[in-house]
Amino acid sequence: MRAATHADSRGPERTRQRLLDEACRLFAMHSFAGTSLQMIADTLGVTKAAVYHHFKTRDDILTAVIQPAIEEMHAIITAAEAQRTPSARADAMLSGLVDLTVKHRGLIAMIGTDPGVTSALQSHPDVVELFRRPGELMALDGSAEAEINATLALAGIATTASSPVMQHHDADVLRRCLLAAGRRILGLRTRKP
Amino acid sequence: MRAATHADSRGPERTRQRLLDEACRLFAMHSFAGTSLQMIADTLGVTKAAVYHHFKTRDDILTAVIQPAIEEMHAIITAAEAQRTPSARADAMLSGLVDLTVKHRGLIAMIGTDPGVTSALQSHPDVVELFRRPGELMALDGSAEAEINATLALAGIATTASSPVMQHHDADVLRRCLLAAGRRILGLRTRKP
Repeated sequence: MRAATHADSRGPERTRQRLLDEACRLFAMHSFAGTSLQMIADTLGVTKAAVYHHFKTRDDILTAVIQPAIEEMHAIITAAEAQRTPSARADAMLSGLVDLTVKHRGLIAMIGTDPGVTSALQSHPDVVELFRRPGELMALDGSAEAEINATLALAGIATTASSPVMQHHDADVLRRCLLAAGRRILGLRTRKP
Repeated sequence: MRAATHADSRGPERTRQRLLDEACRLFAMHSFAGTSLQMIADTLGVTKAAVYHHFKTRDDILTAVIQPAIEEMHAIITAAEAQRTPSARADAMLSGLVDLTVKHRGLIAMIGTDPGVTSALQSHPDVVELFRRPGELMALDGSAEAEINATLALAGIATTASSPVMQHHDADVLRRCLLAAGRRILGLRTRKP
């Protein structure tokens, strides 16, 4: 989406979304630490006060950008925890994780490679927990091997889905292959869809 | 290894190695871009001229730090390419890669997460080729699924071996589990050791 050169008149919600889209584009281009509220205001053609009306800090913008993915991850973890067996929990977590990472691959590419983002996220205990819990749910019996497999699946899926060299693959192909490979890593049987 | 407070008298080779060890420690602490030759000299308790005698630029130090791993990777690729079948080539590449990443996990942690290092490495065509070739050797039939599996194995293994939460695992356990999981990802049969 291109930035408009004037303040948007279609309501504050639309302005807020344009602001978030533009902030993401600037974070990806100049890094999180290298993007100021002033730069966001300049690109949108609005005053810094107009940005400030929606977000007080760059960190507030980051929080708003990742919020939808955070909420989806919470829902996936809750649904996985409700399963009755360890392997059903691991499989529900894995499937949800694959869907989420493919859907938000642009966001993950930004989060995963920007040290400013990584260090900002360390101060969100909620986010730290979200990175820990999927590994636990996927680490089946809690042995060293299960823990290594869970880390491999998590890191491999997130990195592959968000890798620039994988972006030409259709999202459905990527999802299907990552799910199948994740199940092989964790030693889970393929289930009927 | 702690830094000495005086120049080492046991010959230039030993000084060069101390310089590389100390540079790695500083790169990990302050990032590659945040470490100057002056800081390296100060930490070693030598003059900047003494550092300059061994390395003209920070980039020369990075090249020297990664050189042993680069040479090992070349040898692994050459050995894998000499195998007669696609699956033997993939398996040789995978085994070599697991050994290399576990052995150099500290170095990979630094290379993988420091944007200054990543951007410095982009100017080494030799290194770019080294990141591309293992994926090709592991992508068996060249289908979309094989390509996704190879990327998943590569990224997953490198990230897991170098992850801070995996450092408490014994190197042998890590090697054995990563090799077994990598074979499951790529659909390779387990071979006799």
